[in-house]
Amino acid sequence: MLRFDSDYMEGCCPEILRRLTEINLQKNTGYGEDEICNAAREKIRAACGCPEAEVRFISGGTQTNSLMIGALLRPYEGVLSADSGHITGHEAGAIEHGGHKVLTLPNHDGLVDAADVHSYMRAFLADEARTHLVQPGMVYISHPTEYGTLYSRARLEALRAACDEYGLKLYMDGARLGYGLATPGTDLTLRDIARLVDAFYIGGTKVGALFGEAVVVPNPKLIPHFFTMIKQHGALLAKGWVLGLQFDTLFTDGLYLRAAENAIATAAVLREGLRAKGVEFYIDSPTNQIFPVLDNEKIAELRKQVSFNLWAPLDETRSVIRFVTSWASEEADIQALLRLF
Amino acid sequence: MLRFDSDYMEGCCPEILRRLTEINLQKNTGYGEDEICNAAREKIRAACGCPEAEVRFISGGTQTNSLMIGALLRPYEGVLSADSGHITGHEAGAIEHGGHKVLTLPNHDGLVDAADVHSYMRAFLADEARTHLVQPGMVYISHPTEYGTLYSRARLEALRAACDEYGLKLYMDGARLGYGLATPGTDLTLRDIARLVDAFYIGGTKVGALFGEAVVVPNPKLIPHFFTMIKQHGALLAKGWVLGLQFDTLFTDGLYLRAAENAIATAAVLREGLRAKGVEFYIDSPTNQIFPVLDNEKIAELRKQVSFNLWAPLDETRSVIRFVTSWASEEADIQALLRLF
Amino acid sequence: MLRFDSDYMEGCCPEILRRLTEINLQKNTGYGEDEICNAAREKIRAACGCPEAEVRFISGGTQTNSLMIGALLRPYEGVLSADSGHITGHEAGAIEHGGHKVLTLPNHDGLVDAADVHSYMRAFLADEARTHLVQPGMVYISHPTEYGTLYSRARLEALRAACDEYGLKLYMDGARLGYGLATPGTDLTLRDIARLVDAFYIGGTKVGALFGEAVVVPNPKLIPHFFTMIKQHGALLAKGWVLGLQFDTLFTDGLYLRAAENAIATAAVLREGLRAKGVEFYIDSPTNQIFPVLDNEKIAELRKQVSFNLWAPLDETRSVIRFVTSWASEEADIQALLRLF
Amino acid sequence: MLRFDSDYMEGCCPEILRRLTEINLQKNTGYGEDEICNAAREKIRAACGCPEAEVRFISGGTQTNSLMIGALLRPYEGVLSADSGHITGHEAGAIEHGGHKVLTLPNHDGLVDAADVHSYMRAFLADEARTHLVQPGMVYISHPTEYGTLYSRARLEALRAACDEYGLKLYMDGARLGYGLATPGTDLTLRDIARLVDAFYIGGTKVGALFGEAVVVPNPKLIPHFFTMIKQHGALLAKGWVLGLQFDTLFTDGLYLRAAENAIATAAVLREGLRAKGVEFYIDSPTNQIFPVLDNEKIAELRKQVSFNLWAPLDETRSVIRFVTSWASEEADIQALLRLF
Repeated sequence: MLRFDSDYMEGCCPEILRRLTEINLQKNTGYGEDEICNAAREKIRAACGCPEAEVRFISGGTQTNSLMIGALLRPYEGVLSADSGHITGHEAGAIEHGGHKVLTLPNHDGLVDAADVHSYMRAFLADEARTHLVQPGMVYISHPTEYGTLYSRARLEALRAACDEYGLKLYMDGARLGYGLATPGTDLTLRDIARLVDAFYIGGTKVGALFGEAVVVPNPKLIPHFFTMIKQHGALLAKGWVLGLQFDTLFTDGLYLRAAENAIATAAVLREGLRAKGVEFYIDSPTNQIFPVLDNEKIAELRKQVSFNLWAPLDETRSVIRFVTSWASEEADIQALLRLF
Repeated sequence: MLRFDSDYMEGCCPEILRRLTEINLQKNTGYGEDEICNAAREKIRAACGCPEAEVRFISGGTQTNSLMIGALLRPYEGVLSADSGHITGHEAGAIEHGGHKVLTLPNHDGLVDAADVHSYMRAFLADEARTHLVQPGMVYISHPTEYGTLYSRARLEALRAACDEYGLKLYMDGARLGYGLATPGTDLTLRDIARLVDAFYIGGTKVGALFGEAVVVPNPKLIPHFFTMIKQHGALLAKGWVLGLQFDTLFTDGLYLRAAENAIATAAVLREGLRAKGVEFYIDSPTNQIFPVLDNEKIAELRKQVSFNLWAPLDETRSVIRFVTSWASEEADIQALLRLF
Repeated sequence: MLRFDSDYMEGCCPEILRRLTEINLQKNTGYGEDEICNAAREKIRAACGCPEAEVRFISGGTQTNSLMIGALLRPYEGVLSADSGHITGHEAGAIEHGGHKVLTLPNHDGLVDAADVHSYMRAFLADEARTHLVQPGMVYISHPTEYGTLYSRARLEALRAACDEYGLKLYMDGARLGYGLATPGTDLTLRDIARLVDAFYIGGTKVGALFGEAVVVPNPKLIPHFFTMIKQHGALLAKGWVLGLQFDTLFTDGLYLRAAENAIATAAVLREGLRAKGVEFYIDSPTNQIFPVLDNEKIAELRKQVSFNLWAPLDETRSVIRFVTSWASEEADIQALLRLF
Repeated sequence: MLRFDSDYMEGCCPEILRRLTEINLQKNTGYGEDEICNAAREKIRAACGCPEAEVRFISGGTQTNSLMIGALLRPYEGVLSADSGHITGHEAGAIEHGGHKVLTLPNHDGLVDAADVHSYMRAFLADEARTHLVQPGMVYISHPTEYGTLYSRARLEALRAACDEYGLKLYMDGARLGYGLATPGTDLTLRDIARLVDAFYIGGTKVGALFGEAVVVPNPKLIPHFFTMIKQHGALLAKGWVLGLQFDTLFTDGLYLRAAENAIATAAVLREGLRAKGVEFYIDSPTNQIFPVLDNEKIAELRKQVSFNLWAPLDETRSVIRFVTSWASEEADIQALLRLF
């Protein structure tokens, strides 16, 4: 069975297991207060160009989103998100469980447009009954998006400006951030992101780590008592150094980007190969998720040999599916998949 | 520096890293629905003697407690806990963050006594204003307790009977369960526990795993839509098999108990050695946590060479400290520590 | 200034103040456990044809919605509502504050259609990732709706059948229930409602009471420990009899419907009068809220002499406004308003 | 039956019903934004000596406490309260439902002592694991307390100083505030309170109003978006002017204090009368709640003719009961009660 379901099917970059094995019996301080975490923090701060940043390591993405939205909002505030955003539909109500409403904006191939923030906020401010409405407090975006698309620097700058105009925080879900950074042609760097958003996370689970995400808050004064909030959310790993070591490894010698590049390169081979065979795509996504449109019969046939996600029905006879490559994908598998078309 | 701060300072049983390395590039289904998790589940069910049990793997202890209390209670119910319970004081309000009040019972060397459940519930039921009070819905215990003490089978049976009398659920925090099971002289087995409580978890983080806890719900009908609740709590690890593999390894060939026995054995050497040197103990704990009472001057001097927790001041000149051994403790370190007395 | 902003601008049916004055120094038991509340309960049970119903009196509508949704759902469940529903947009996130997501359905002039419940649930059940989604647990409707429209008996029966098919609870917000029941031509009676929904409330605040809503749960076993939940939500009035007396008065000699009929009758005069003058309406609402479409210039001019709500802009030059009549509206004011057209 | 159960058994000062009747058909703006509420605000600001204060009217006490604790705390903070505090035991977990832990201090006849705040905070700050604990964010007190006792000005100043030292907010539950202010010998004025606490409420429900509490926030900048939070908590009454009018009446010509004085005076007659008959008291409370200690047989006998609360058993044969007088108590009833001793 060829598997293209997701980018979290394999373990991690072998360097990580090697280092875990090396230091296995070393005794470390708990809760992310150890030297390994501190070293990882310094490397991430350097890569982001923000030497003062608060950096914390969290086990998973939904947990991180729930934590950060809880930390950035006041209880009466809601979070603006694309209607395709992960927090909107695929986190089982984790954000509402924390007391906050997700307010939706239209998505543009998964992206949020500054113009829609302006429209939303102008309508909100013009509403005579606005004190009876949920007060928007932040904008949630992901990079890459659920559709594998990317913000340009200009687009993110426009979002930042919109947020500034209305006093909104800007938060980026970077579950697949490495894949965004490693895509040829992107003009948005890690430093840009650290400069333009109030908080974001660098995804490890989907980009070369066994598990874990690194939250970055460029201005640490933004979230007082962050450590206690992490504990309160059940998001504080006792052996924090297991997370720290992974990010320390990923941010040594450019491993994070190198790992990501493999997914981008193999996805490009797959995309071009399918295109050459006449397959159409639902969306033009440059990263490691691609969305072919196939006949339902073809899909049924493929499923006998390949595992992948059924994204959505398109019409009576066709559906959108999703193939995902990862840091560990091998070109032989791509070629085997292409031979099925 | 000798380190006896906690049992979560080292990595994991080497077998785990070996297996993680072996299957590192294998492609697995996400969210704990894979074959490795299923194998681990079967081994745990067999060990517990409950073939129908729901078994789920969660990253950490506070997260598990918060999840399970949320899953077992109705929104208007509170949880009874010893006033020394971990959820009472050391989880940064995670339980209240989930909307539930922690109602305290006196502790008996860390243990909850059935008689105190009876007293609490009788007073509650006799209170003319009881509909204005938080309705107790469950009893939380840990085994071993925060003081390293253990429930006997008779004591746990009495608690179960008390819970049955008042319609309370009984939940056991097993962060250090292995150490409790491996202590010579205990008459409480894993099967007893699975028979007597409504839900419990088998701690991995502190007993030989890199991280992770295995929740066991002997009667799976007790918690409908458990998977969705796990996701909603941000407690669903994408690569669930990283957790499953650890428990599969620990529950193969008795590794879990064997790992635990080392902590018990080294703690015994330390306990006897200190006693021989005239050190007194705050509490008589048979497991891997021991609580010497020392002069504050001695403590200050020790701290130059040993790291450990300051538990509580005892009087003007003396304090209680805590030494903890683990599955990875070495007798050489115990001897080195004893030489400082 | 003529005022047609809302139906909660005047006090209450004079009979209520008269009775409050009569019994003012009588000593009553607190928290709704008194004889006056019990008498009101019996009258409401009789009117609803459900002699076993639980009936509780709550101060306001948002509080009631938040309480009832919290009482009817499990923590991982969400509530389906028309996208025009009051809980969706105008309760400042009270439902999410309680931990539940509001899942939206398209509205049909404010109404929920059973077909949309079927579509939503079929798509949900067909979604391979549905355990990662919010589990729908109930349907929220209001009668009359935010647009002043009404459910027919057949439409409500279809909704009930859809809810039964998927195991959903059905809850009706009856903030303006009296106006719905008093509208000529409606075939939906109070007894129908009590037969078809799991819980609803009979609005007092907007229909002749000083304040207060009467929650009716036809099958009281549906919500165990309801009293304690009311207290926990801060929704338990100490002097419950102040609420009970109002409903006892309203449900004596048909006062509730009689009060409502005045609003319906005066709204009809206004509607026909405007129509005769060529005014168009945004929606065909038969109750006490009417939605004329006016030129923005006309609106600006009217506002000098009349207060009313600006509902929404329609196009560049016209907007929808809302006029509301109440149990206390006087025909002289209607005629004065009509003279301004 | 003589009734001394509580101070919320009668309606309200007749002036209130008279004014409600007079303006019954007047049309008012909703949600507390009307002229009557504004007039009441001005009178309360003047009485408190804080012309800038935010003043809002809320239906009931538990609702107010839950709202204000939610508004004053950050999500990771808890509230310090006497272990006898109303929020600790008698609000069905409303505070925890809002996500906050109630941290208890010993009570001194119901009062919180600044020394205990110092002890708690010193221990907290000295705890090496304090980032794993709930961060105290405010102190909750009530005046009078649950035991009918009163803060002196010096005692409240000491509390204020302690709060300042640790950055804690200070909030006063004034459900019975009028009775505290009207007690002979108290040196704590309304102006003192407004000067010394961050927020408090002036109780109406128990002191002459039909229902309602007036929240006062001397520095309105302390709680941004307070209106929206009130709505979100379901605590915004549509007909806010029903509350405003009551406080406007109570704060006209000293009615609030005059009403309270009757409770104090009748309680004094009862207290002295019982003392003269040899009855002992559990606590020396100068306000309208008194706590005689009686033989259980006497209590059983009394209950045939008098309703009152059984407070707590004292020993095998005796219990503490509570008699409460109100603004509406009549001396004839006091004398009738005394004749039963």
